[in-house]
Amino acid sequence: MAQHDAPAKAAWNFAAGPARLPDAVLARAGAALFERGADGAAAIERPFTGAGFREVLADARQRLAALLGVPDHYRVLFLAGGAMHQFSMLPMNLLDPASGLRRVAYADSGYWSRRAMQEAARYAEVAVVARHAGALPLTAPPLDDWQVPPDCAYCHITANETVDGIAYPAWPNTGAVPLVADATSCFLSAPLDVSKFGLIYASAQKNIGPSGLTVVIVREDLLRRPALAAPSALCYRLQAAQDSCLNTPPTLAIHLAALVFDWISESGGLVAMASANRRKADLLYSAIDSSQGFYTAPVAHGHRSTTNVRFHLADERLTEVFLTDAAAAGLHHLRGHRQVGGLRASLYNAMPDAGVAALVDFMAEFARGHG
Amino acid sequence: MAQHDAPAKAAWNFAAGPARLPDAVLARAGAALFERGADGAAAIERPFTGAGFREVLADARQRLAALLGVPDHYRVLFLAGGAMHQFSMLPMNLLDPASGLRRVAYADSGYWSRRAMQEAARYAEVAVVARHAGALPLTAPPLDDWQVPPDCAYCHITANETVDGIAYPAWPNTGAVPLVADATSCFLSAPLDVSKFGLIYASAQKNIGPSGLTVVIVREDLLRRPALAAPSALCYRLQAAQDSCLNTPPTLAIHLAALVFDWISESGGLVAMASANRRKADLLYSAIDSSQGFYTAPVAHGHRSTTNVRFHLADERLTEVFLTDAAAAGLHHLRGHRQVGGLRASLYNAMPDAGVAALVDFMAEFARGHG
Repeated sequence: MAQHDAPAKAAWNFAAGPARLPDAVLARAGAALFERGADGAAAIERPFTGAGFREVLADARQRLAALLGVPDHYRVLFLAGGAMHQFSMLPMNLLDPASGLRRVAYADSGYWSRRAMQEAARYAEVAVVARHAGALPLTAPPLDDWQVPPDCAYCHITANETVDGIAYPAWPNTGAVPLVADATSCFLSAPLDVSKFGLIYASAQKNIGPSGLTVVIVREDLLRRPALAAPSALCYRLQAAQDSCLNTPPTLAIHLAALVFDWISESGGLVAMASANRRKADLLYSAIDSSQGFYTAPVAHGHRSTTNVRFHLADERLTEVFLTDAAAAGLHHLRGHRQVGGLRASLYNAMPDAGVAALVDFMAEFARGHG
Repeated sequence: MAQHDAPAKAAWNFAAGPARLPDAVLARAGAALFERGADGAAAIERPFTGAGFREVLADARQRLAALLGVPDHYRVLFLAGGAMHQFSMLPMNLLDPASGLRRVAYADSGYWSRRAMQEAARYAEVAVVARHAGALPLTAPPLDDWQVPPDCAYCHITANETVDGIAYPAWPNTGAVPLVADATSCFLSAPLDVSKFGLIYASAQKNIGPSGLTVVIVREDLLRRPALAAPSALCYRLQAAQDSCLNTPPTLAIHLAALVFDWISESGGLVAMASANRRKADLLYSAIDSSQGFYTAPVAHGHRSTTNVRFHLADERLTEVFLTDAAAAGLHHLRGHRQVGGLRASLYNAMPDAGVAALVDFMAEFARGHG
């Protein structure tokens, strides 16, 4: 076979988000979104007030609720924007000075939790109730002994630190103060006990689909807070009262999310996702740990993210060579976040075993060539 | 030919938004967004920090600036959310009490301008500087004699009232106070002299593409206002400093917008859009005006929207019959907004002459059957 007829080499996208979508979703998406139906409209062209879109929205909500087992006293919202919008919405919606809820509590587990608390600090005093040590190996903040002041409107954790590669091994006890989680980069990667949280949010560009959409799951009692300062479009209560349609929602992104929820259901649900994600992460972390120090993982066992696997070359000067050679081998977007450097492979639900196997094979070969 | 082999009858979608996209964009979108490239990623899967997306963003910005002739001292932003987000962002970003800008000015031209001013009133005192009469035939607020108080941070108009079907025939003179326009439903329907405005915003689901994205064109001097109250993701200055990428932008929607901008350019630009839109609107308004009172248009000549054509049946009891029969004839989403009733045909750039011709033919036939 002539070289120009060679089959295209497999290429793998390890980006942290927007990130790889399931093959089956990509295969369906064009027709599902862009082919016109009997009403002369494709999904992207349908009015958000009509039955066509409202059925998609209801299906997305019901399917997500079924996947997670969302209790009846929670509401599922599909909102425009990303997690950064939630960073402001949390204090704006949940503070309630008239009821004595004047402060907010945050745990510092890494880059994104600090970004979240910096934004919250613009609206209220922040009580930092736990910190990760910062020394190697990295861990999530210790879970014992959280003293959450009772005048805090909520206590915020970042369930999985996308940049740092740190995940909580379990959830803290915050007593009467509602626990709020940024679950962006671990959402739908495994079962999650929603009942432990007052509010969970996740921007969509990891395990849900496109950017520009954020899922919020909020306990109904929190919707009774006054939200005096929140812009209407950013008010949980108003959006919940209108089923996320106070204003035109991102209909295309919600439609894509529904396709992803379908795929997760068809693939065995969150138990199957968790099993596959554990297997993929174990394969990659084992390759790192068994490299005799050529590669190192900065995060301690038990605190390692299954979705965002961080590692470094012992000789950091090889990092650029690694990235160049990896790209040439069809392994893309492996550069670590600029704040922490090194390398990162994001292994969301849509990354198949074959992608991780290709990375592990390359890493072994690279180590042999440069060890 | 057996009946079940008959070619599908043409169907037309007259929804006010999300709305019809150009055929050529729909035809390209699936491959452009969902087919993977050499880096193993489809456009929807690419990181927003990488060269792939940044080229799409720069192309979208440059092409839009070229279409409109945006002057150099303006910035073009692509932000998550809809016009409702802008309703809050305007006062949050542009008020500057320390510089004496304590109030905001609004003109009341109909439904959406009132929604905009209601939201602004949560943040500052609103000076209503002009009102439409409210009596038939409807007009935009009169343009002479606008007394805009100098302590107003801006003066807001709704350039085209999507619900009421009213469009300004020209722009008011607001003196030293920056004129701000909600151009959502007329944006890119015709040339626009950006230099007359301090800020123009348009949510995308009319002439740009998908919902969940809003274009903002803002004069650079307005970015120097303090924006103390704005959530970071909703801060014009911060988003401008990061080229709309302070946080993950709606990459899929921006990519689609770029495809639409390409299509407008290839189709002759905004002069050609204006010519086609004038032709389509004239065809429909002529059918209404020549119906001997069977159909009536509530908006006065010179103030009629070319993009959102409102009309009523003289016998309002026929409205439901009209909608049912129209749908059976392949003419969809013609119901007027619930606040005003009647009928509405939205004729955005992507609606071809053939769609309007089909509607006009149906209207004549319906009038013959029920006159």
